[in-house]
Amino acid sequence: MQPIDKYNSRVGKVGSLLCVGLDSELAKLSDKFKMVAFPQFQFNKWIIEQTHEFVSAYKINIAFYEQHGDKGLKELKMTMDYLVGNYPDIFTICDAKRGDIGNTNRGYVEEIFDWLRFDAVTLHPYMGKESLEPFLARKDKMNFILCRTSNPGAGEFQSLSGRTAGSEEAVRPLWEIVAEHVKDWGDNCGLVVATDFNKVREIAGDMPFLVPGIGAQGGSVEEAVKGGNVIINSSRGIIFAENPKDEAKK
Amino acid sequence: MQPIDKYNSRVGKVGSLLCVGLDSELAKLSDKFKMVAFPQFQFNKWIIEQTHEFVSAYKINIAFYEQHGDKGLKELKMTMDYLVGNYPDIFTICDAKRGDIGNTNRGYVEEIFDWLRFDAVTLHPYMGKESLEPFLARKDKMNFILCRTSNPGAGEFQSLSGRTAGSEEAVRPLWEIVAEHVKDWGDNCGLVVATDFNKVREIAGDMPFLVPGIGAQGGSVEEAVKGGNVIINSSRGIIFAENPKDEAKK
Repeated sequence: MQPIDKYNSRVGKVGSLLCVGLDSELAKLSDKFKMVAFPQFQFNKWIIEQTHEFVSAYKINIAFYEQHGDKGLKELKMTMDYLVGNYPDIFTICDAKRGDIGNTNRGYVEEIFDWLRFDAVTLHPYMGKESLEPFLARKDKMNFILCRTSNPGAGEFQSLSGRTAGSEEAVRPLWEIVAEHVKDWGDNCGLVVATDFNKVREIAGDMPFLVPGIGAQGGSVEEAVKGGNVIINSSRGIIFAENPKDEAKK
Repeated sequence: MQPIDKYNSRVGKVGSLLCVGLDSELAKLSDKFKMVAFPQFQFNKWIIEQTHEFVSAYKINIAFYEQHGDKGLKELKMTMDYLVGNYPDIFTICDAKRGDIGNTNRGYVEEIFDWLRFDAVTLHPYMGKESLEPFLARKDKMNFILCRTSNPGAGEFQSLSGRTAGSEEAVRPLWEIVAEHVKDWGDNCGLVVATDFNKVREIAGDMPFLVPGIGAQGGSVEEAVKGGNVIINSSRGIIFAENPKDEAKK
């Protein structure tokens, strides 16, 4: 049993690849929620109730909670306790984009995997596989490594054309090299891919992909899902819709 | 007045480049501290009292606090309130190694710069300058971009030899390209450099360097300080010494 199997089982059960992003930015919540003691938690609870039957995964970007300090982190913990307690078969991803040296990463591992009980995390590749070992050692959890993002400035470093120093191999973009390396990091690794799905699939085989956004961030659903093993996230389009349930169902 | 001037003024005042890393891992604290209600804060307060007169900066790796969830983040806030309240001229660095897309980075900006009131943060370059704009827009704060780290696996991607796609420029390691780019990101940017100081200095001119560790991480003090504008961090060697005050004085 690989950690991604939890996600795939849920996909089989609900017949949907949908991942809802609980990026519940406080400023965007309606006054009804802003007035309660734990607005981000109460909003999330409502969204979860509206959407869970169509959902295979929830992705939570931790920045929207850390924005409010220890109180925000507490509301994230309440959200995860609610999710794990009520819908333990839904896959959960902490979009944290972490990456420190080994010893220090243990702090994030304990926070994200043990305290918050997420099934997966997103990570930066810049310091190499060795730095990420505390995450990779957790065979019960998934690690999605940033590979090919689609923000306007993504190409600044990701598209640099290079090769292993001193080698004669063909030069290619950094994101292709990241895909090639991560492919060998183990069964508990996947890639964050927001565009160029066909090319990354060609390099990385059937590794799980986390697609951070369809529509808003420019990816096409059809290309992304080809080959399977893909988690497709939608955040603002669903949680801030007039009717989140209808939107998720679509 | 540039944000790094706060650090340089303090260096002039105390005659020391020392940055003490408050990486106060709970498991490493003595029983005396473990028994109090806020052990990480009480330990930090003691270390600050022992070392402040020799110190130009404190660097805090946020992972050691997030490890303990909202309680850890609260103890970090207490530490920063104590520092800013009592020693407002000491420069403070949040070693957070963050890096998300623009909109989302605003959450970290509010947490680290506004709520915790750090003077500086460390960031990942992988998604490019554009993604980091919410940090870079804060002209009152310093942003140290990961450039050349010295963890055992640092070379996996940082040493890839490359160049801008399609250009004819000479190929060189990714860390050199990062240094070259960040040099043009503004006066509120610096580089995290743990080795190859001379080469990075040659590329980046007098940009501020944050040197994460001398000794433990293999850098040499003499090479690092050549050219000035450098913050040299020491964590475990000081805070877990028998006598932190004597150790800082050295």
